[in-house]
Parts: sequence; C-alpha cells; structure tokens
Amino acid sequence: MRVEIVAVGTELLLGQIADTNSQWLGEQLAAHGIDSYFHQHVGDNHERIVLALRTALARGDAVIVTGGLGPTQDDITREALAEVMNVPLERDEEIAGAIRTMFEARGRTMPANNLRQADVPRGALVIAARRGTAPGLVCPLGHKVVYAVPGVTHEMREMFERAIRPDLEQRASREGQRTAIVSRVLRTWGASESALAEAVAERFDALRASERVTLAFLASGIEGIKVRLTARGDDAEHARQLLRVEESLVRALITERLGNIIFGVDEQTMEDAVAERLSERGLTLAVAESLTGGLIASRLVAVPGASAWFRGGVVSYASEVKFDLLHVPEGPVVSAAAADAMARGVRDLLGADVGLATTGVAGPDPQDDLPVGTVFLGVVVGDHARQVALQLPGDRPRIRAYSAISALDALRRTLEVSAPPRA
Amino acid sequence: MRVEIVAVGTELLLGQIADTNSQWLGEQLAAHGIDSYFHQHVGDNHERIVLALRTALARGDAVIVTGGLGPTQDDITREALAEVMNVPLERDEEIAGAIRTMFEARGRTMPANNLRQADVPRGALVIAARRGTAPGLVCPLGHKVVYAVPGVTHEMREMFERAIRPDLEQRASREGQRTAIVSRVLRTWGASESALAEAVAERFDALRASERVTLAFLASGIEGIKVRLTARGDDAEHARQLLRVEESLVRALITERLGNIIFGVDEQTMEDAVAERLSERGLTLAVAESLTGGLIASRLVAVPGASAWFRGGVVSYASEVKFDLLHVPEGPVVSAAAADAMARGVRDLLGADVGLATTGVAGPDPQDDLPVGTVFLGVVVGDHARQVALQLPGDRPRIRAYSAISALDALRRTLEVSAPPRA
Repeated sequence: MRVEIVAVGTELLLGQIADTNSQWLGEQLAAHGIDSYFHQHVGDNHERIVLALRTALARGDAVIVTGGLGPTQDDITREALAEVMNVPLERDEEIAGAIRTMFEARGRTMPANNLRQADVPRGALVIAARRGTAPGLVCPLGHKVVYAVPGVTHEMREMFERAIRPDLEQRASREGQRTAIVSRVLRTWGASESALAEAVAERFDALRASERVTLAFLASGIEGIKVRLTARGDDAEHARQLLRVEESLVRALITERLGNIIFGVDEQTMEDAVAERLSERGLTLAVAESLTGGLIASRLVAVPGASAWFRGGVVSYASEVKFDLLHVPEGPVVSAAAADAMARGVRDLLGADVGLATTGVAGPDPQDDLPVGTVFLGVVVGDHARQVALQLPGDRPRIRAYSAISALDALRRTLEVSAPPRA
Repeated sequence: MRVEIVAVGTELLLGQIADTNSQWLGEQLAAHGIDSYFHQHVGDNHERIVLALRTALARGDAVIVTGGLGPTQDDITREALAEVMNVPLERDEEIAGAIRTMFEARGRTMPANNLRQADVPRGALVIAARRGTAPGLVCPLGHKVVYAVPGVTHEMREMFERAIRPDLEQRASREGQRTAIVSRVLRTWGASESALAEAVAERFDALRASERVTLAFLASGIEGIKVRLTARGDDAEHARQLLRVEESLVRALITERLGNIIFGVDEQTMEDAVAERLSERGLTLAVAESLTGGLIASRLVAVPGASAWFRGGVVSYASEVKFDLLHVPEGPVVSAAAADAMARGVRDLLGADVGLATTGVAGPDPQDDLPVGTVFLGVVVGDHARQVALQLPGDRPRIRAYSAISALDALRRTLEVSAPPRA
C-alpha cells in the first residue's frame, strides 16, 4: 500500500498556514507501517485539484485528500472528485437532513450553500460527520481509493482514526503487506553530519540493502545532528527488537569514534539532559550570561520543575555589572579568566552549587581587538573548573544560539566527569 | 511564471519535522507576485525524487527543490538532478578547494564524503555557499529551470534572496509579465484577528473587487497579528503610491478603533520597537525576570547595538534571589507589588534608568493558590510606575512567551506616555 496525501487550500501555497495535517497523517501512516512516498499541496482551483489527484493516483494505491469540503464557494474538492471518478454529484437527503437539524438545534438560520456539503459523487461512501457539518468521502476507483476529509484538524483526525485507518489496514492485510514500524532518534551535539556519517559508515552500508532497518541523518539547525533509526518488523515486538540491536551497534560506533556526543533520544533537548544530570546529583545551578543574554536561563526555565535545581541567573551585559555584581577582576571581559570568574561569581551570589557562564563577541562589530565569534565558556562544579574557548562562525543570532547550546553541553559533560549521581 | 516547490526528505513524509521551508518560500513567492500552484514532499529515494521533479517540470515553468544537498549518503538530490537533466555529475575543483579550506580554517579533518558537495551536474550553475558547505545549483532545462538549495533553513533563505528571487524576477520580466508588487506589513499586538478584521472591514470590502491592492491578516503565533497590504502597480513608483494611500487609511482605522496597537512594520520586532524608543530617549534598561527566565533579556540582546541602552538583568527564579538580591519585601512573590519591587530593585542594582519585571505562574502546577497563567508585569520609568495583571491561556511555553512580549509591549507604551524623545 502506497498512500499519497494531497492537502487542498490556497492558504497552504501562500504560506499563510503550516500544513500540520500532512505532518500528522505522515506520522500516523508510518506508525502503522503504511508507506507514504509523496505529499502534495494544491490551491482551491478545480483543474489543479483534478491534476493533483490524478498524479497521486498514478503513483500510489490510495490518496487521502484534506480540505475543500466546507460550505463556501471555494470548497470544491467534491466537484474535483466527481470529475476524477467521472460520475455526477448527487444530493444525499440523509446528510442534508442532518445539516438542517444541526442548524435548527442551534437556533440558527442555515445559509443555503451549506447543503453543498450533502453532495456526494455517485458511487462514493459517506464518512458521517461527528464533529462538524462536512462529511468525509470514500471514493473507489477500480482497486484504488481516494479518501476525502475536512481540513479542520480535529475533524480530520477523528475521521482518519474511525474510518480511514481501519480501511487502509484491511486493504493492506488483503495484500498480505502488514508490518509494524518503530523509530528512535539519537540526539548528538559537537560532531558534523559528515563526521557522523563516516563514524557509522559500516552500518549505513550494511543496511543499504535492508528492507528492515534504515539509518538517516537530520541536521536540526543549531540543535545538533539527529541520527534516526527506523525498523520495520512483522509485528511491533519484532520491530522493537530489530531497533534495539541496531541502536546498540550505532551507539557503540559513535561513542568509540566521536566520544560522548549523544546527549539524548527522541524529543529530549539539551536542557532536558542538563536537568536530568543536575537532578540525579542533587545539585543547584546559577548562570551568568553576557553575549547569550538570557538564552541559557530561558532554555533552563523551559523545563517543567526547574525550580528544584535552578536558582537563577545574571545577565551581565554591561562590563560594570560583571565587575560590581559578579566580582570579575578588572581586565579584559572577553577571556577564559573572566568566564571562570563569572561562573564563580554567580554561583556565590545566588547560593548555588554549580556556576555556568558565557562571555564573547556576538558582533556585528569586533570588541577589544577580538574578532566576532570569539567566545569563552566557564563551568564550576565544586573544585572542578573548566573553561572552553570557541571561535564560532555565523551572524549574531547564530553565534549567540551556538554559544548557549555549547555552554549547556559543556555543563552536561563536566557534570558527568566531576560528580557521580546520587544513589 | 509558475513555480513548484519540491521538498526532499524522508523525515517530512514521516511527519518528524514540519515543512517550514515550503511555507516560507510560498510566502516569499506570493509577496513578489510569482505564482505557485503546487508543492510536493518526497523522500530520500532516487527514483521518487526524479519522478517528483519530472512531475513538477511538466506542470510548471520553474522548480525550487530544497534538501538532499548535504555530504552524507542519503543526500541524493544532485544525482536525481543529473538524471532529470540527462547529464553526468562532474567534480567542481573550485568548490572542492573551498570546502577543504573551510575545514582547515577550523582546524578539523575533512571527511572524504564532504567532497560529494562539489559534484555538479554538467551545465548547471553554482550558487556559492556562504553559510554552510553545500552550494546551491541552478539547472537549466530548455526554457525551464530547477533551483536546488540546502534544506537548512538559513542557508536556503540566504540563497533564495541572493540568487533565486532575482533570477525568477528576470525570467518573469523577459516574459513581459512584470508588474511591480510592493507590500507592507503592519505589526500589531494586543487585538484579536476578528477585532482587527472588524476595525478595517470597510477597507476590506472596498478592496474586494480591486485587482490592485489586497489586505490580509496573518496570525504570527505569539508575535501578534500582521496586517499585510500588497499593491500591484504598473511600475514600482505606482505600486508604492497605491500602498502609501492604503496604509494611511488602514492605520487610521486601526488606531482610532483599537488604540496604539501597531508597534512596527515589516520585519520589526517588539524588541526593535523598544530599542528604538529607549535610544530616542537616551535611557538605559535593566530587567528582572521570574517566569520568563531570561526570555526578555535574550530578545533585547538580539538587537545589534544593545550595549548602548541595555545594562543587563537578573533571572530571579528562586524566591530568595528576589528577596536577597532585588530587595523584594517578604510576602507573596506573585503579585503586582512584587513585580513593582523587582523592577525598582533591578534598576537600582544595575544602575539603569528604566526597570522592567515579570513574575507569575507558568505551570504546570499552580503556585501560592494562584492558577496557572497568573502573571504580573512591572515597569518603572523615572517617577512613572505601572503594573499590569494578566491571566494568560495555554501551556508553559506559551504563557512564558506571551508574558515576555506583553512585558516588552507594556514598556513600549509606558515609554511613549512617560518620557518625550530627546530632540
């Protein structure tokens, strides 16, 4: 079974809204082991919807079309479906009655065009509307099929769960193709995509011919590189077992060749990783930020329950704030010594166990004869102090964001080597 | 000119990431008057990328393909392009040299597969990489064209602005389709989309039949509602004139009916608006943040030149930090009085002219018997103090983000009424 998703709506082409429907449907299909190789967006235009549907039918076994089923003049998916099926639209009196009743129950006058939602291409089955007024449609075309659902997210999801997924699964099992898919994402920081690819090249090559397990890399902007493992098994347990084996092989290769760069899995963020390590060790944290200016603190506060381990921070943007409040010795404020003094200063000022600090030149102009991108990080955990010097590429927002995640990663690594988790 | 967007990446089909690239490109093409009728998503599979590109070329004049240009084994857009063009891939020694140099400059060993990024289909032009290592490609096919750019958002956007948009505009003008389009976005904060629609309803109705000027609303998540005006003129001056007239009408209606809610235009952010007003008045700022935890400071530091007016801040996440460092009187820390004391405390501590503070309950749990979403803001400008109480909807990230922009807006408005700009 190859299912193509076609999302209808000019607002998608104009970028006025994000197509979260296709994203959700893609996730659902993958989770249920149903292949989806293409998505399309098309505007509210009859000829082009027909063309998009024909294209999708030519390269797949089933199509899910979302949107264009409402009551207004620009809702024309029904007409396009009738043309693709080469049948007339016929008014379904049962649906028409239900729509009239719904308006009466709410004490509202029904605009006449609402009855357009009762038009059904001859030969199509109806997916009754439970949440809105627009029903969905199941349109058979030979042994292929087009499912049409409203673009309103919660209506679409409900109809997918109730009618489309069961129908797709039945079709797939008739074809004997039923499998289960599971995946896991390893989150890494500190290695390039190509270095990662080289580290796991032998697994990548071994899996090339595999129909079972795939390995892919996702660059997540400044949040590091994700390594995604996906396994397809005969059932869920089989898929999970394939995934477990592959994950341990890939983890071993990455750690052996690139060191401790895997900071989490799936949706875990770097701040989640830091929070976990602080909590495990029963330590509290304070941060002093110059060029990152609150980015680190705001990421830490994003973690629910941060009050258990986060004391707070000082954004020491002006140099005098570094000297007066954090007791940084007079001298160059962009230096490893200043980063160290800031980390110690904020730890003492806010009564925390651990101090973390950033200072540097975010640009656009150089500072103290230091080029844009010069950054120093300071970490203090008990007697253990560490400073990191970086020369970062990019513009101001990029340098600041890189500095923030680099500092969190330096903290994560320092915690791991300097203090054991509490029993 | 009809431009189709093809986004490459199995992660898009699996719903693991949202396709924000196509959304942004759709918005840009629309803003520049270039038609886009279809988008596609396709996975990292040679045959299917070729099929998607051929489909797009059959129904459009130009294709922008994003993704699959990186250094790893699953980056295969180059190979697919070579097949569609029916030419071989050739290594470009200039690109290869630049990639080697970049790795040397960073003192890193270059993994061999990075040179795949120097492979160019014969006859294609190169869009030099300025931010990453992957160059873009301009692939002519008769009088049609395929542009290929990396999937990494900031690289994609930079190449679109620098190379693709100018080329598309030149092609459109050769076809004599060129009319000049200009647009302006009015950025608002504090009114709902429906309230704005009602305020400008008479202009909306008047423009409905216009081929020249359009008016649209864009909800920008937590950054307020954007009102976009677009004018299509016979030439640039004509378009600008149409736009000027409409802008003054729409501004007058909004300000008269909803007050001072327009904080900027086009790409101006709320922090830009605050920066401008502080600079005009020669005032310096310090911030004290509890639930926003550095979000406000980090937005302010994002403005280049912030050191002229931003002293710094204190993230007083733990209550003792509020008492000890900011001299907030003992008592409930989520209150208007605490917000006022925090604003005064941080202003005095950091030696600034203006103080801004946030305190509140971000959740997930209530605090001091106050429900999640209870937020107090404090602003102090000279003798002028103002506190704002909010009850915000949503989850933790949403409450924090709303609090941050609300605080910046409160500061903007307070500055406007409390102090005149310097001559």
